[in-house]
Amino acid sequence: MADDAPREIEALIDLMARLPGLGPRSARRAVLTLLKKRGQLMAPLAQAMANVALTARDCVVCGNIGTSDRCAICTDDRRATGEICVVENVADLWAMERAGAFKGRYHVLGGTLSALDGIGPDELRIPALTRRIADEGITEVILALNATVDGQTTAHYIADSLSGSGTSITSLAQGVPIGGELDYLDDGTIGAALRARKRF
Amino acid sequence: MADDAPREIEALIDLMARLPGLGPRSARRAVLTLLKKRGQLMAPLAQAMANVALTARDCVVCGNIGTSDRCAICTDDRRATGEICVVENVADLWAMERAGAFKGRYHVLGGTLSALDGIGPDELRIPALTRRIADEGITEVILALNATVDGQTTAHYIADSLSGSGTSITSLAQGVPIGGELDYLDDGTIGAALRARKRF
Ligand SMILES: [Zn+2]
Ligand SMILES: [Zn+2]
Repeated sequence: MADDAPREIEALIDLMARLPGLGPRSARRAVLTLLKKRGQLMAPLAQAMANVALTARDCVVCGNIGTSDRCAICTDDRRATGEICVVENVADLWAMERAGAFKGRYHVLGGTLSALDGIGPDELRIPALTRRIADEGITEVILALNATVDGQTTAHYIADSLSGSGTSITSLAQGVPIGGELDYLDDGTIGAALRARKRF
Repeated sequence: MADDAPREIEALIDLMARLPGLGPRSARRAVLTLLKKRGQLMAPLAQAMANVALTARDCVVCGNIGTSDRCAICTDDRRATGEICVVENVADLWAMERAGAFKGRYHVLGGTLSALDGIGPDELRIPALTRRIADEGITEVILALNATVDGQTTAHYIADSLSGSGTSITSLAQGVPIGGELDYLDDGTIGAALRARKRF
């Protein structure tokens, strides 16, 4: 779509349009709002974004996003070390944290197994999970994967591969609706599903 | 809404949520996408935004946004100088330019008259429009305001205040649907409405 804005502004619109939920038209509207609020909104937003782009990094232990090699959860002594909650992505970790029901550590897979997309265990953080269970004395692994086909396939794969580890493998209770994604659930549902978790 | 992301990321989510069309949830999703594409998307977007925040300025002549005191349209010798197309905002100017049907100059009001919001002529660029008509030898003023109550009130106010100027005042033809906003129209409709413009 040709915009007849100055080149610099068109470049900004094109980049904004690559964000989820923003098409070319809504990206243009967003940029117009930014242009109207150059001082109060655009400059601080650019600064905040540059700051995050510069400082954000993946936690080398769990795959969560933080601002140093080990994330705030992995370095929090008050969090239980024997339990790992396995989630697909950082959005799901945030959803779990908002529910406030889990006090252990996480492991972020970075996606789900998908034959279609050629994503096998090595494309996810599954080997690292296996190592953590051996190294960290984990007594329970809670599989908090989405109730989608790929999520459940991945859960079964992980449960199988950990079956000889002596670790208890549980999954969120059926409070999670079929086909539901964690990030869309209310905090209460997530909390209830966690408390009623069952052996996998 | 409490996000359990690092503070820097929460600050970014809060700023993103202030963009039109993005609520807290979609802002979070947008930031997660940015976090996944730190190098390819987040850093360039932050840079583009900082660049625009630094360079964008309002044209002192017409109110369009450009990168210098006078915008690309006002400094384009190939554009007719005798005709001014009056629009509410820069989005509408871009919509007119996309239609490609108008070859004169613009005047961006910066809004519409609104008793409710306490916006009178002096809050808009109406005095500047009056000065331009006297100074630039304008023969036609095309009122391309939205077909909304406020848009049409503003059009009538401008037509009245220019009635003694000897300048021809026209408005876009009724190709613009009632209640319609220019920025939502296809280019063909805008072009047709412009060509069929009628005396106001
Ligand atoms: Zn971590
Ligand atoms: Zn200009």
